[in-house]
Amino acid sequence: MFLFCKSNPYTMGMLPPSPFFILLATLLATSHGFDFDITHQIHPLRPQSGARSTDVPGLSCQSWRFGVETNNIRGWKTVPDKCEGYVGHYMLGQQYRKDSEVVANEAILYAQSLKLAGDGKDIWVFDIDETSLSNLPYYAKHGFGVEPYNATFFNEWVNKGEAPSLPESLRLYNKLLSLGVKIVFITGRPEDQKKVTAKNLQSVGFHTWEKLIHKGSAFSGKTAVVYKSSERKELENGGYRIIGNIGDQWSDLLGTNTGNRTFKLPDPLYYIS
Amino acid sequence: MFLFCKSNPYTMGMLPPSPFFILLATLLATSHGFDFDITHQIHPLRPQSGARSTDVPGLSCQSWRFGVETNNIRGWKTVPDKCEGYVGHYMLGQQYRKDSEVVANEAILYAQSLKLAGDGKDIWVFDIDETSLSNLPYYAKHGFGVEPYNATFFNEWVNKGEAPSLPESLRLYNKLLSLGVKIVFITGRPEDQKKVTAKNLQSVGFHTWEKLIHKGSAFSGKTAVVYKSSERKELENGGYRIIGNIGDQWSDLLGTNTGNRTFKLPDPLYYIS
Repeated sequence: MFLFCKSNPYTMGMLPPSPFFILLATLLATSHGFDFDITHQIHPLRPQSGARSTDVPGLSCQSWRFGVETNNIRGWKTVPDKCEGYVGHYMLGQQYRKDSEVVANEAILYAQSLKLAGDGKDIWVFDIDETSLSNLPYYAKHGFGVEPYNATFFNEWVNKGEAPSLPESLRLYNKLLSLGVKIVFITGRPEDQKKVTAKNLQSVGFHTWEKLIHKGSAFSGKTAVVYKSSERKELENGGYRIIGNIGDQWSDLLGTNTGNRTFKLPDPLYYIS
Repeated sequence: MFLFCKSNPYTMGMLPPSPFFILLATLLATSHGFDFDITHQIHPLRPQSGARSTDVPGLSCQSWRFGVETNNIRGWKTVPDKCEGYVGHYMLGQQYRKDSEVVANEAILYAQSLKLAGDGKDIWVFDIDETSLSNLPYYAKHGFGVEPYNATFFNEWVNKGEAPSLPESLRLYNKLLSLGVKIVFITGRPEDQKKVTAKNLQSVGFHTWEKLIHKGSAFSGKTAVVYKSSERKELENGGYRIIGNIGDQWSDLLGTNTGNRTFKLPDPLYYIS
């Protein structure tokens, strides 16, 4: 059981605790694979499994995450300082993977229940960041969402093309392909990252797609809800049927032409409106 | 700090653990206030605070709850057997209250940010069960959602009119009234429970409202989404502006005429479509 794909050795699925885990935290923190120099450890995660919140006076990080995942808390800029440890443990422990697993399971059950036309017009929309590709190696080095977003640093990371897959989303992707559903990626990444994104997707197992849609300059300054709704509308105008839609942000799933059913993956790292 | 209102002595907010907590579990289980006969304890809750899931092989109850609260898991009939203890601890521990607190805080911040017309047409829609009134005393005696829904037993409980308030919702309610917002309750309870519901609401602090809408026979067999959307549409047709809408079920918040902003309270006990 690996949290990430084979091309990146961040194993975080079903792990025995303690020294191995600390080593993994180090690997993640350094973000370039097997680096056994333990002094590189920048985020001293203790071996905790799951999302057991530490008790933060005046703020329950667990409740903050509830608020975020249910779209009650909106427009937030960064993870509360006090919740860095909580979010780190959540992401690196078993709970993030388990939460994603439940979503993929429900999506697969739903997809299997459908009678598909088989005419090549049934599509499933996938977001990319924190849905298909994971930026956890980046965020592990940047305070798990506590640090304000830095476009320069983040783009440097994206342009490496080394993001691992989210394994539960990859499982869903493969199941959908086997059912004859076509995949359309719609991402907020700009068009100049299309080449590196395509290469990254393929290198971790997302080997084919019907369309890979990046955010064009026409949508510059527009919200993700507006941009993604517009792109989905265009897909439907083109005769496609959006049978499913999966993303980590509510802005992937709200607006118009949202698809027959939406699936919300966990993401306590950042908010996109 | 009390989880429930003054008229019902289920204190579950900020508690010291252990013997007191066990006593409270007993009080809840007996559901009629101060009964000190410890042998009545039907659900032997150990003193655990928060929602720390026990490790259930093959199923993370924490992930199940994530799936439910994010509307990924739909149409479920009962809480998974293995999650009775988890849900019980969540509901009776601090986490349920804390999660509700975050929702109320966000709703109040939002309401305070609005420029209201002050013409008496700004309304906020409240659901009743698990939003305004809590049926936790009932569910604590019925397996915390593990037992299949039993209309006879549940109606007996409702007809007692002894449901406590959800204190965080009552706090929001009072704040909204102080801002000049009017309250409309829309409940799935049938019309023959209107009298007892009104009395129950008033006895726990919801002392006034613009409208109290029960599910009429015209909506018999219709989903909550259809019924509530229709009632909200009628409100808007009548000149009201729904500035906010709060409920514990996604079916309170989806459909049409959902209001300017919706707020999702936690509820891992049951699902209504």
